[in-house]
Amino acid sequence: MPDAATEPAKRGRPRRGPDPERFREIVDAAAEVFLEKGYSATSIQDISDRVGILKGSLYHYVRSKEDFLYRIIKDVYDEAIDDIRKIGEGEQEPLARLAAFIRAHVRFAAAHLTAYTIQLREFEQLSAERREEIRQGGETYVEALQAILEDGQAAGLVDASLQVRLASIIITGELNSMTRWYSPKGSLEPDQLADVYVGMVLTSVASEAAVTKAGGVEALRTEFALGQG
Amino acid sequence: MPDAATEPAKRGRPRRGPDPERFREIVDAAAEVFLEKGYSATSIQDISDRVGILKGSLYHYVRSKEDFLYRIIKDVYDEAIDDIRKIGEGEQEPLARLAAFIRAHVRFAAAHLTAYTIQLREFEQLSAERREEIRQGGETYVEALQAILEDGQAAGLVDASLQVRLASIIITGELNSMTRWYSPKGSLEPDQLADVYVGMVLTSVASEAAVTKAGGVEALRTEFALGQG
Repeated sequence: MPDAATEPAKRGRPRRGPDPERFREIVDAAAEVFLEKGYSATSIQDISDRVGILKGSLYHYVRSKEDFLYRIIKDVYDEAIDDIRKIGEGEQEPLARLAAFIRAHVRFAAAHLTAYTIQLREFEQLSAERREEIRQGGETYVEALQAILEDGQAAGLVDASLQVRLASIIITGELNSMTRWYSPKGSLEPDQLADVYVGMVLTSVASEAAVTKAGGVEALRTEFALGQG
Repeated sequence: MPDAATEPAKRGRPRRGPDPERFREIVDAAAEVFLEKGYSATSIQDISDRVGILKGSLYHYVRSKEDFLYRIIKDVYDEAIDDIRKIGEGEQEPLARLAAFIRAHVRFAAAHLTAYTIQLREFEQLSAERREEIRQGGETYVEALQAILEDGQAAGLVDASLQVRLASIIITGELNSMTRWYSPKGSLEPDQLADVYVGMVLTSVASEAAVTKAGGVEALRTEFALGQG
């Protein structure tokens, strides 16, 4: 361990690239302002006021207001997809994996409500190129869900007549819509909400065999519940 | 009845309130511009350019840009609620009514995609008072769905352990999310999409008895389908 007393005296902070932690703080502040005022009505000055930094210093981190919007949306997508990919590759049987996917989504969305809400409202404000990039991220998400439903069909646990592509899009919309009304300040815990989602989604796609195996449709609806908190 | 011949001669058109049909055209044009440019980036000038009317003449119909946004959202809400109320008051058994509710929603949303999309994206741009008014409209919608599910529970056809309030909010979100991806230019007809929604939603809430009555979960999933076009 170096002896502090022997180190050369520093003149101010060393020169280096943007501090990632500070950048994270600034992006989070930008997200708050976008949520409150809307993206179009927000200026770079509003963001610098919120952070308590000189406006010019923000350009150390980004080139434009849209860079903030991109960073907010991109980060939440990347992290969500990373989360979901792990579940898709899990070794559980398909309905258990579907339940895990749904629970992971609800927990994640509850923990990242601001970024999710901004994505929902302000997506069209991104440049065409960036919209396309984010769309591909959304596509990865739907495909992960679709792969689970296809495995479920192969295992005879998901209704063979279900159009899995369309069902995956519908379920994604169903899950994402929680960001329009869910509040972490309410009495509903993410896992309680996940229990309801898991039960409704699983029974909405289950095959006859899956229902029989679970001991009926109502039993299947609670099979993967963690119980009320 | 007054004799027209005895009335004083009129100079030009009689003075009267704004023409409702013309107003409708202007509101539709405003909706198109909001969809293309976003509400914040749209000026009253943009709307008057689109309609081919003098900017000053627009103020014959509205006092502000926000009046247009309100009119777009309010009209689609009022019409949807009117549609849905009729179904809620129907005399069919609860699951048939639920199927009719879902089908009506899908048809309506497909026919009013622009207004729905604007509502989704720009709702927060309304004044606080108007947001509250629209929220009450949304609440009426959720309550109509909830009443059907409660009737279903009373009839033993909807899972008695289902939290119907929460389920109604989830189903509303599931149905509304179609406006984020559905395009009338694609190959999927509204009634084909409704078939999938009806099957998935009904099985997501059905009781054991309802599944048995239908002859199994897969049979219930297609019981109210109109078939592929």
